[in-house]
Amino acid sequence: MRVVFLGTASSVPTTQRGLSSVAVIRGGEIILFDVGEGAQRSMIISNLNPNKVEKVFITHLHGDHCIGLLGLMQTLSMMLREKPLYIYGPRGIVGFLNDNIKHLKFHLTYPLHIQNVKQGVVVREKDYVIKAALAEHSIKAYAYRLDEFERPGVFYPEKALALGVPKGILWSKLQHGECVKIGDKIIRPEQVTGPKRRGRSIGISGDTRPSSKLIEFFRGVDLLIFDSTYGDEYADKAVENFHSTAKEAGIIAKEAGAKLLALTHFSARYDDVNSLIAQASAIHPNVTAAYDSLIIDIPYPD
Amino acid sequence: MRVVFLGTASSVPTTQRGLSSVAVIRGGEIILFDVGEGAQRSMIISNLNPNKVEKVFITHLHGDHCIGLLGLMQTLSMMLREKPLYIYGPRGIVGFLNDNIKHLKFHLTYPLHIQNVKQGVVVREKDYVIKAALAEHSIKAYAYRLDEFERPGVFYPEKALALGVPKGILWSKLQHGECVKIGDKIIRPEQVTGPKRRGRSIGISGDTRPSSKLIEFFRGVDLLIFDSTYGDEYADKAVENFHSTAKEAGIIAKEAGAKLLALTHFSARYDDVNSLIAQASAIHPNVTAAYDSLIIDIPYPD
Repeated sequence: MRVVFLGTASSVPTTQRGLSSVAVIRGGEIILFDVGEGAQRSMIISNLNPNKVEKVFITHLHGDHCIGLLGLMQTLSMMLREKPLYIYGPRGIVGFLNDNIKHLKFHLTYPLHIQNVKQGVVVREKDYVIKAALAEHSIKAYAYRLDEFERPGVFYPEKALALGVPKGILWSKLQHGECVKIGDKIIRPEQVTGPKRRGRSIGISGDTRPSSKLIEFFRGVDLLIFDSTYGDEYADKAVENFHSTAKEAGIIAKEAGAKLLALTHFSARYDDVNSLIAQASAIHPNVTAAYDSLIIDIPYPD
Repeated sequence: MRVVFLGTASSVPTTQRGLSSVAVIRGGEIILFDVGEGAQRSMIISNLNPNKVEKVFITHLHGDHCIGLLGLMQTLSMMLREKPLYIYGPRGIVGFLNDNIKHLKFHLTYPLHIQNVKQGVVVREKDYVIKAALAEHSIKAYAYRLDEFERPGVFYPEKALALGVPKGILWSKLQHGECVKIGDKIIRPEQVTGPKRRGRSIGISGDTRPSSKLIEFFRGVDLLIFDSTYGDEYADKAVENFHSTAKEAGIIAKEAGAKLLALTHFSARYDDVNSLIAQASAIHPNVTAAYDSLIIDIPYPD
């Protein structure tokens, strides 16, 4: 599972940072979390094919988090996309998209499914689930979390052979959790595989104040991408504008037990975000600052 | 008068080119012609202050020419702009902007004036006029032309002194075209100034097929910025998609007597536009290919 940051600025773009967007790449599909203005171009710069986007999750309907969706939708039509695009976001997203489709005469070449998000499970696929929780922002906003399901343990061919199971379809059955019969013996999967392996997980805060609810929501994620608009010196502005400081991001990450914290959504006043990294790192041992085109590969947990 | 190209791609952005937008800078104001996605960031990269934008002219309501207006409008509110913003475009622009203001909760800090364009004079200021003419595109589209008014001729202080006019307010009056009285003598401006100087002019085609109407509309412009989506090899696509080839842009520029032709709105299939420059240059002697951040200063005519 790979994360590519497409835009890491808050509110207003800078020479170095575009507006909010994160791409998650897994199993051949791309899932976008927010699509700020310029995201489609960032995808091209990061060598990601926009047509591989299957699902889009919008945290909230502030322009800097969703305007890029319009250009992306138009581009997908120019690419003559045929497969459906699924878009999830807070109430209001249906009107926003449908009115623009009408005004800008998009002539979509593909089915568009737009769905209002509620808290809880938003999407459940074979391999993963994406959930939403309410964030604390100036308008209705959701944080999202992606969890891969547990996978079968490592398969040990030598154990299978020792138990008389020949290589072939029976191995595959055991690898996928089924019992097989050899003569009158039943061989169970746990006899030939290691313990089940935990899936990987990512949390994305969108724009938010820190909250105990989000600590619970992000419990144990491998990567937490959290609002870090300000440093300590603007803690008052963070409260006023319903954002978080780097330190507050660090506290949430620590309390939630997140393995890695990626700070993002930096105010344009920070040319250099080293002070923000330092403030978060004083709380949480594993902190990075996102920048446009940054790639983070999330390894399988031990 | 300075022209800065903010985006020079057609339809879809590339690693090198953003979507259509041209900034004209004169007399302390910035006038934008089209605002494709990413234009506000291009302004920052080109060191142009978005708050200096006074007027915006949209050629047509395809997303790649107007979606960037949404982010720009939002940014101007974040800058706490108070002075009005004037936006001109084809019928439909009022609904497009007002619906987005509603859906995205812009809370504008400044008055917004949105006006449907008709052919003819759109804006007349003290120093210049901007006119519109219908282009030939798949939806209603306008081409625009900016003409500075004639300015007073060069003032010759030695002639004024020789006629007995002392330095001061009387010189200023003569420079601004008024007669002055010295004793019982009337001194006329033309006695102390050179011939009146022609203003400068720019034409912007937006997306269009070539047409005899546009040749008339762009007659004698100093700079013509013209749709050059394709080269000769895709002349059929130019017809099909209501665009122009570089050669057709050259023909319009030549027939209109444009001093300089700037090709723009290049299809993403052209990594290198040298062939397009060559095709237009075979027709018109003075051709350049726009690129993002290109600056063209338009000198006063002789």
